[in-house]
Amino acid sequence: MSPLNEAAGAITRAQGFRAAGLACGIKQATPDLALVAADAAVPTAAVFTTSRAAAAPVQLCRRHLAQSDLCRAVIFNSGRANAATGKQGLDNAEEMVAAVAQQLDCPSEQVLVCSTGVIGLPLPMDKIRSGIEQAAAQLAATPEAGHDAANAILTTDTRAKEVVVHGEGYVIGGMAKGAAMVRPDMATMLALVTTDAVVAPDMLARALAAANARSINAINIDGCQSTNDTVIVLASGASKVQPAEAAFTEQLTGVCKDLARQIVGDAECATRVITLEVSGAPDDTAAREIGKFVADSDLVRSSFYGGDPNWGRIVQALGVCSVPVDPEEVIIRYAGVDTCRGGIAFPFDEAALVAELERGDFTVEIVVGAGPGSAQVLTADLTPEYVSFNGERS
Amino acid sequence: MSPLNEAAGAITRAQGFRAAGLACGIKQATPDLALVAADAAVPTAAVFTTSRAAAAPVQLCRRHLAQSDLCRAVIFNSGRANAATGKQGLDNAEEMVAAVAQQLDCPSEQVLVCSTGVIGLPLPMDKIRSGIEQAAAQLAATPEAGHDAANAILTTDTRAKEVVVHGEGYVIGGMAKGAAMVRPDMATMLALVTTDAVVAPDMLARALAAANARSINAINIDGCQSTNDTVIVLASGASKVQPAEAAFTEQLTGVCKDLARQIVGDAECATRVITLEVSGAPDDTAAREIGKFVADSDLVRSSFYGGDPNWGRIVQALGVCSVPVDPEEVIIRYAGVDTCRGGIAFPFDEAALVAELERGDFTVEIVVGAGPGSAQVLTADLTPEYVSFNGERS
Repeated sequence: MSPLNEAAGAITRAQGFRAAGLACGIKQATPDLALVAADAAVPTAAVFTTSRAAAAPVQLCRRHLAQSDLCRAVIFNSGRANAATGKQGLDNAEEMVAAVAQQLDCPSEQVLVCSTGVIGLPLPMDKIRSGIEQAAAQLAATPEAGHDAANAILTTDTRAKEVVVHGEGYVIGGMAKGAAMVRPDMATMLALVTTDAVVAPDMLARALAAANARSINAINIDGCQSTNDTVIVLASGASKVQPAEAAFTEQLTGVCKDLARQIVGDAECATRVITLEVSGAPDDTAAREIGKFVADSDLVRSSFYGGDPNWGRIVQALGVCSVPVDPEEVIIRYAGVDTCRGGIAFPFDEAALVAELERGDFTVEIVVGAGPGSAQVLTADLTPEYVSFNGERS
Repeated sequence: MSPLNEAAGAITRAQGFRAAGLACGIKQATPDLALVAADAAVPTAAVFTTSRAAAAPVQLCRRHLAQSDLCRAVIFNSGRANAATGKQGLDNAEEMVAAVAQQLDCPSEQVLVCSTGVIGLPLPMDKIRSGIEQAAAQLAATPEAGHDAANAILTTDTRAKEVVVHGEGYVIGGMAKGAAMVRPDMATMLALVTTDAVVAPDMLARALAAANARSINAINIDGCQSTNDTVIVLASGASKVQPAEAAFTEQLTGVCKDLARQIVGDAECATRVITLEVSGAPDDTAAREIGKFVADSDLVRSSFYGGDPNWGRIVQALGVCSVPVDPEEVIIRYAGVDTCRGGIAFPFDEAALVAELERGDFTVEIVVGAGPGSAQVLTADLTPEYVSFNGERS
């Protein structure tokens, strides 16, 4: 995995893509509009929030992808989520893609749209209209342009999230914005991945589903799924290299895992990334559900904040998990140290373990039985600052 | 509903019950052992946590009630939950009821036991053994003795929770400890209700199930169900009055609702009680699920802390609720003021509403459709202090 400095401008590292990012005035003097365009309509796959309150841009993307799995461009805005905006919101999302289609001279159906920010407020369409014209004029294949786009999709994130992975003869690059809550309203995770590998739409969809399940869909920061969550991947084929599906899926998973870790590492007001390694479940899906359930517990995440090996709270959460867990099978290990076996206390050197946990990020292993299923789930600690921040009025 | 001063010693207000509460040394110099005894074995009903990690006392109570629905006494300890304690925990719970049975000269099966406090640590049985002897010797039918018992079951609660309701010729009294988290480990809600009405065991069970669903099972403070949650009702029949089932159920519901409100009002580090009035659901159960789901959201509860009429976060939570909700049907009212209709913003005087919410407790109405189902769910705000408190190591 590349470090961030090599990853800057990730979204234009694959051949066949141009990008732009700029401030059009939705937010105050910070970048808030990004455009990423392929040189032609290319195979595209996406996954979206399962919320029934899906925002207008999500609804529009779903419709467009049902009409065409070849896309030309994705337009992003930050600052307003265009969620809970009714018919006017859908009209505005359609106007955004139509404006991009006009600039790129392509059908509207080949343009996707992502929004993130405050919900319930209308988009300032005048600013967005002129922003789109300007962005189309600035489109460039440079790392700088790619990095501008990565910055323009941020909200309460403190830094851009980018990653580049090199396959055999092809490149995959990704950018994301975090599941940090958007003050004052909404978590949104957006990610765009571009590759110059030659990948047919159906294989791209399978690879994204597999990669997403093991990465972005395996993080849980505060249990709040957004109205706008979206992951899109575009494959230009410009490298002329056609990878095997297994290899490509593995690379794409690497990109998505790296973005997921960056998102959790920059979670709003969090101080630590905690990796939950769940094993012994009936299958991988059950293991992931168990990990996400544990990460839903305010009591567990408060104890992570305190660096407290409080295995009792994990046992308590497991006791009411939607996936049945037999407490007598449970083993819990903090940073490699057994604290609980068979669902009851196991002696450990508390002072030594606490000192270890105080150093920062740590891993908690949760064994729930003898089954073959395992999963890695990332979460962040719950902090007093998170509550203060999200308790403030806009 | 009686105010607290008239309610002190609630558990001995019905005829036929004696109580004691004292400090036996589990905690440092605060009351930690309570005994409540009926003059004879009397009809008893109970509801327990649904956690698969149910604590030893819960397992023992279930077994005893399966053997006999007539009980003589309930022994309580605070300070240690006797949860996640394995076979030793079960042995200790059995020893507690055997000691009470010996003192009262009744079969062990007629004694129930409740524990609350730190999990994973063994009970100090020497202290508990002599505490039980002392408590049995102190049993009294006075309000003072009842109030001592109500104090001895508390953990991080800041005050005793008691209520007395007068039916036509009979009395129902209840005491509870809160769902406030026990530092450092565990939420536990315990409640005991005594009445001198003449009620058969099967009617008592039906009345408790109905009362519990509309009261204690309709609160959600931090989504954390405990290993030890227990509600027990004992009916001595000493008044010789046999109430109609509907009237008795209504009175018992009043007792449980009052205790539920006291629990939420004393939730750990909370500053407000928020009443969620959900209506328009397919049925009452669905309405209650929706209310509890909304109260599970950290983002929603953080906005309650801020007194922020942030309807967007409620729409976001409804979008992913286990009970399907059509966002276009949603109306959200804070303190009687419409803020969202049809799932989108509805204009309101924000300054006036914020001033109203800042006064303290408030009600949020959530209309989810045109169905006949409704429910009232109580919750408390999520505060920075809650996280700090639960992030501290023991």
